[in-house]
Amino acid sequence: MTPHPRLATALAFLLVAATAHAAEPEAPQPELERLSEEVFATAAVLRDRALAESDAYDFVADLTLEVGPRSAGSEGDRRGVAWALERLRAMGLENVHAEPVTVPRWERGHAAGRIVSPFPHRVVLVALGGSVGTVEGGITAEVVELPGLEELEAADPATIAGKIVYLSGRMERSPFGETYGPAVAKRGHGPAVAAERGAVAVLIRSVGTSTDRIAHTGATRYREGVPAIPAAALSNPDADLLSAMIARGEPVRFHLELGSRRLGEAQSANVIAEVPGRERPEEIVLLAAHLDSWDLGTGAMDDGAGCAIVAETARILAALPERPRRTVRVLLAANEEFGLSGATAYGELHAEEMARHVVALESDFGLGAVNALRSKLTAADLPLAADLARLVAPLGVPYQGNLAYGGADLRPVMAAGVPVFDLPQDATRYFDYHHTANDVLAILDPDAMRQNVAAYVAVTYALAEMEGGLERVPVEEEDGH
Amino acid sequence: MTPHPRLATALAFLLVAATAHAAEPEAPQPELERLSEEVFATAAVLRDRALAESDAYDFVADLTLEVGPRSAGSEGDRRGVAWALERLRAMGLENVHAEPVTVPRWERGHAAGRIVSPFPHRVVLVALGGSVGTVEGGITAEVVELPGLEELEAADPATIAGKIVYLSGRMERSPFGETYGPAVAKRGHGPAVAAERGAVAVLIRSVGTSTDRIAHTGATRYREGVPAIPAAALSNPDADLLSAMIARGEPVRFHLELGSRRLGEAQSANVIAEVPGRERPEEIVLLAAHLDSWDLGTGAMDDGAGCAIVAETARILAALPERPRRTVRVLLAANEEFGLSGATAYGELHAEEMARHVVALESDFGLGAVNALRSKLTAADLPLAADLARLVAPLGVPYQGNLAYGGADLRPVMAAGVPVFDLPQDATRYFDYHHTANDVLAILDPDAMRQNVAAYVAVTYALAEMEGGLERVPVEEEDGH
Repeated sequence: MTPHPRLATALAFLLVAATAHAAEPEAPQPELERLSEEVFATAAVLRDRALAESDAYDFVADLTLEVGPRSAGSEGDRRGVAWALERLRAMGLENVHAEPVTVPRWERGHAAGRIVSPFPHRVVLVALGGSVGTVEGGITAEVVELPGLEELEAADPATIAGKIVYLSGRMERSPFGETYGPAVAKRGHGPAVAAERGAVAVLIRSVGTSTDRIAHTGATRYREGVPAIPAAALSNPDADLLSAMIARGEPVRFHLELGSRRLGEAQSANVIAEVPGRERPEEIVLLAAHLDSWDLGTGAMDDGAGCAIVAETARILAALPERPRRTVRVLLAANEEFGLSGATAYGELHAEEMARHVVALESDFGLGAVNALRSKLTAADLPLAADLARLVAPLGVPYQGNLAYGGADLRPVMAAGVPVFDLPQDATRYFDYHHTANDVLAILDPDAMRQNVAAYVAVTYALAEMEGGLERVPVEEEDGH
Repeated sequence: MTPHPRLATALAFLLVAATAHAAEPEAPQPELERLSEEVFATAAVLRDRALAESDAYDFVADLTLEVGPRSAGSEGDRRGVAWALERLRAMGLENVHAEPVTVPRWERGHAAGRIVSPFPHRVVLVALGGSVGTVEGGITAEVVELPGLEELEAADPATIAGKIVYLSGRMERSPFGETYGPAVAKRGHGPAVAAERGAVAVLIRSVGTSTDRIAHTGATRYREGVPAIPAAALSNPDADLLSAMIARGEPVRFHLELGSRRLGEAQSANVIAEVPGRERPEEIVLLAAHLDSWDLGTGAMDDGAGCAIVAETARILAALPERPRRTVRVLLAANEEFGLSGATAYGELHAEEMARHVVALESDFGLGAVNALRSKLTAADLPLAADLARLVAPLGVPYQGNLAYGGADLRPVMAAGVPVFDLPQDATRYFDYHHTANDVLAILDPDAMRQNVAAYVAVTYALAEMEGGLERVPVEEEDGH
């Protein structure tokens, strides 16, 4: 996933507020404001049943075994789309179909790096997604270490020119992933900013919290008019080694060899499935996740788990004797990781339908239990958030405020003013595995997945069944960075 | 390290005994039997000072940064010997010198593996140490899964011939490493036993407890008269995937490509350093560790930490205003991992000196705090163990019995009847890192290392200073396996 950079700041305030609030005596249970007693009661039953017996884990087990990695435009991507179409049909969903998406292709190729001097070492690194390769045989240059993007922007280009820039800032673990936004800037923009100052390549300390010799990939973005230079991420222990060697004070020379290359475009697809509404089928509650993954692991967590959670939610609703009033639509988006192609295509293809999107949620935050409910509603609709908060509270999920992020694949939907809810997952360990070879089935916890489905099914049922609609939400300007 | 296979059984009894004992009321403090009050008091002061301020960590930090991996006969091995000689001299030790050791050379080369069908997957694997390579381009064959060596020995050769044997038994974590012995048999003997039955290659689930996509290497042994077949270890998550695919019931085909090869012999060296004895310099208290490492990590834990602990122990004793009565000798052995060449050479070169080895200890069990004291003494000398147990008890170290293992590098010394003590380390996490790329500085804990030095310095001082000597220990027959 690609969290919103502004979320970190907002969360910092909220965490303080939530702590302060916890000390106050419990308020008496309020009346329901926007949900009927009946809708609430049914949602609660679905929640408890899903917590006991939903089965999103098997979806991921089969996807990762039968398909594996699904990077945009790859053979795995194509097989993933075919697999998902078949699986969603078998789960009893309707209108299951693929919608073509053109995606950029990038080939990782081989990657090797070593410290040449003063003390030779092979290191573990991976190319950043989208990186160009080095010249055949690799490049060797002196390393200049800077903590992050700000220091790089402030650096004298004379100290950078001809060198390999090494951005060494470390990301710490955090329960809401609030440390990711500040850390990821160097991955996205480091290579372009370094190239502007004459650097020949960029190394970063992995944007991730793994303590293993496993490096974290993720997309980088070059800028037009600035040379595209090779960029790679070191595992945390290898970054420690490089920093320790540089701290000795002697010049450190590094050899980098990347066989990466950008290819042309390829065809992929968004996969759509629906639980058609009983009374208002034209009104859509959208549940999104992304079907593509990075290539190093099998995309079990990012975002096989999200696909499984929203698909299992829809399966449970489809199996009800009486389906919800509105249509629940599942979107398994193409290529979230390398440019949001699927989200963009969905926005374009469904532009005329946006007014009929009542609300949207995305599951793309990993392997933990849901640890918050967040909304993005108008003030007039906030009472609904209070009702939903009561619904998920028994799952250990507190309401965190009206600052839902929505999810990368919901950007076009949010740009149309569609309200969103977040059910984020405990991110403490998420960034240990994020974009690494370790993103495989073994890291998932079936109990946490059942808790996720329980939260999604309760909230989704309530949103699809509630009597009243929701106002459009004023659209905020995006940050430039 | 290479623990003794029989240790597991003995430990199982002892753990029960220790638990039962813990419930009894504490006995009154006994009188010292073999140590004088003065020796005990000095040892206790050294212990407490080492716990507060010893510095074995920096030894490993420098060794891993300035040298790195040190597999037998490699360039790193040669640099490691030179580094150790210089370091031990700088630490104030005497008679620092290298003793030539001839070691076998093995080159890892590239390694790649993938499941070909029914569902293609690249997997993470490493060649077992000493494995031959595959033919150019690799081999492809159907996989037959068996839990371990016993089932392989019992299998009908007709089910094995022409196949890749996959030994899938899992090793669990354990505080004393008692799960290692049973698990490692398949690594040492699997390839030979499979080849006898016509297998074309062997895959094993890594002998290790890492949950990451990091595979564990370690030596395998071919048998004369049996074809040497390629052998590799899968990471635990990749072993899970392979087992899950086989469990589907369709034939699973696998492609394995190893560029490994055995080369000739090379020169390495044992590194020796001493704290010459004040009164009886001819009597030797031997502290061993091994300087070589596997090639995947930097050998921080296995056995950089052990080298650091015994060297720092000797440094502290060398810095005393009055050195201990006996000589404390440090042996940093060559090539423990790939055939115990250093231990064998030490036994040969010092054969005539064996009678003057009073007692020996080896540090080669990882990254944890010392969690037991074990002795291997005659019954007449057991009172000394009781005295030493009192000395290390404040470090949280209980006496576990008269069943010390001694250490792989002490085999020739033990074969001469020299008594030994063990100060094993908590092994719960040891086999997460053992023989992997993750064996780097980042996994070490400076506090645990200080506790180790505290235990070693107290015990070593007492042994080097005590008035009386020790009887030879009757030599047990080795198990064949």
